[in-house]
Amino acid sequence: MQVEIVNRDTDPIPQNRNFVEMLRGQWAKGHFISVGLDPDPERVPPTISVLDFNKSIIDATIDLAGAYKPNSAFYEERGASGIQMLIDTIAYIHEKDPSIPVILDAKRGDIGSTMSAYARYSFDTVGADAVTAHPYLGKEALKPLLERKDKGVIVLVRTSNKGAGEFQDFSGPDGEPLYLNVARHVAEWNEEYGNCALVVGATYPDDIKLIRQAVPSLPFLIPGIGTQGGDHENAVRNGRDANNQGFILNSSSGIIFASSPRTELEALTNMTNQFRMAA
Amino acid sequence: MQVEIVNRDTDPIPQNRNFVEMLRGQWAKGHFISVGLDPDPERVPPTISVLDFNKSIIDATIDLAGAYKPNSAFYEERGASGIQMLIDTIAYIHEKDPSIPVILDAKRGDIGSTMSAYARYSFDTVGADAVTAHPYLGKEALKPLLERKDKGVIVLVRTSNKGAGEFQDFSGPDGEPLYLNVARHVAEWNEEYGNCALVVGATYPDDIKLIRQAVPSLPFLIPGIGTQGGDHENAVRNGRDANNQGFILNSSSGIIFASSPRTELEALTNMTNQFRMAA
Repeated sequence: MQVEIVNRDTDPIPQNRNFVEMLRGQWAKGHFISVGLDPDPERVPPTISVLDFNKSIIDATIDLAGAYKPNSAFYEERGASGIQMLIDTIAYIHEKDPSIPVILDAKRGDIGSTMSAYARYSFDTVGADAVTAHPYLGKEALKPLLERKDKGVIVLVRTSNKGAGEFQDFSGPDGEPLYLNVARHVAEWNEEYGNCALVVGATYPDDIKLIRQAVPSLPFLIPGIGTQGGDHENAVRNGRDANNQGFILNSSSGIIFASSPRTELEALTNMTNQFRMAA
Repeated sequence: MQVEIVNRDTDPIPQNRNFVEMLRGQWAKGHFISVGLDPDPERVPPTISVLDFNKSIIDATIDLAGAYKPNSAFYEERGASGIQMLIDTIAYIHEKDPSIPVILDAKRGDIGSTMSAYARYSFDTVGADAVTAHPYLGKEALKPLLERKDKGVIVLVRTSNKGAGEFQDFSGPDGEPLYLNVARHVAEWNEEYGNCALVVGATYPDDIKLIRQAVPSLPFLIPGIGTQGGDHENAVRNGRDANNQGFILNSSSGIIFASSPRTELEALTNMTNQFRMAA
C-alpha cells in the first residue's frame, strides 16, 4: 500500500490556524456539514488503501465540506500504519484547503502529564484543529487542551447513542440532569479560554433545545443524523444560535459510503440551510 | 532506533488469557503493584529508545510486578513509531511472563462501530488484557468492550486528580454523588459480564471507603500514590476486599524514573502487603 509519509521534522503543522475563526468562515459560506472520515474495516474493502479511500472522499467533497472529522479509533486499530494514514489524511486536507477545520474525534479525557500528551497527539502529531473530549474528569484535567487556545475543545454533553441517559440524565437535587450541568460548566470554561464547543446528538432534539437555552452561543457539533436516525430538521432548528448558525452537523457513513458522496453532502447541505433559515 | 517489529499476521496475540484470573493469580503471589509504563518525552532522554527503556524496566521488575499499565497517550503522541513501540512493549511482557496482565490505560468511551474499533485496538492490535474506559456514554456504548469477557473493562469512577469532583460529586436527589452511582451501575454490569473493575484514586481514601461499601467485590485499580501524593496506607485499608485482596495499586513515574525501579517496586510491594494484612 503506497502512502505519502508526513515527517513532522520536515513538514510542520501549518501555523495561524484558529478553530473558532475557521468554523465561522465555513458558516459564512453556508457550509454546516462535517464529513466523518471513519474507514470502518468492516466496510472499506481491504484491497483499497485507506489513504486513497479518504483522498477520493476529500477530493469529491472539499468545496462543500464545513469540516472533516476522522475518528481516531478506525486508524488506531490499524496499528502504526493506521496512525500514519491519519496523519497523512489530515495533512492532505490542510494542503488541499487550509480554511477547512479538521476535528479529531478522539473523545479523550485524562489527567496531568497524560492529558498534555493527548494534546500533543491531537494538535501536533496528528495536526487536528479541534478534538472531542470527555467531561468526567473536569476542567482541571482538560487544561492542557483548553490552554491551546487556537484549537477547539469539543466536550461530550449529550451523546447520540440509545443508552446515553444512563448517566447523562442523572439528576441533581434541583432536577437538573448531569448533561445540562456539564453544558453550563463548559460555557463557564469558555469564558476563560474561548475555544470550547459541545457535542449534542441529533437523536435527542428536545435535549438540544434545553442545551441551546442554557448555552446560547457555544458551537454545537451534532452527530447522529443518517444511520443513527437522528431528527435532522429539529436538531438544526433547536441547535441553531440567534444568527441561525452556531453548529456543525456530522455525517460519516451516510456520506463516505454513499454511491456519490458529493451528491449526499450537497443534499445534506441544502436541507440544513433550509432548516436553519426557516422561521 | 532498533525495534523488534511485531506483525499481527504472523505473531498473533497469545490465547487463553483471562484478565480476572490473571489478577487473582498475582494476588495469590502477594503482587499488588502495577508498573505504569509512561515514557513521558519530557523525562525519557531522546537518545534512548522507548522500547529499550521499557525493556530495562520490565527486566528489572517482572518477578514482582502485579501488572503493567502503559498509558496509550505517551505512545500515540510519538505517531506511527510510538504505536509500534506500544505493541512491541506488550508483546515483550507477554513473552517474558505470560501470567502478568497488561492494562492499557486508554480511557476510551465511544459508541457503536467506533467502540468496536477501540475494542479491536486495545485487545487485538495492541494485545492488552484490560482497558480503562469512561462511563459517560453508559453501558450500552461500552458493550463491545464488555462482550470481550476474557478482557478486563476498568471504568473510571473516582479519578485521582484535584478537580475530579467537578462532575463526579454531582449529587442526585437523594444526595448520592455521581461517582457512587457509576460504581453501583458497573457492579450491575459485572453481574452480566463478569469482567469489570473500577478506577478509584488513592488521593480520595474516604471515597474509596464508600465505594468499597457499595461494591464489595469488584477489583479496584488505584492510581495516585507517589507523585500525586495519594494516601498509600488508607487507600489500601479502604480499598481491600473481605479477603484483603481485590485491588491493584499503580505507580508510574515513581517506579520507572527511580534510580532503582526494582528497589522502589519491592518497597511498594512490601508496604502494600503490610497495609492490606493489618487489622
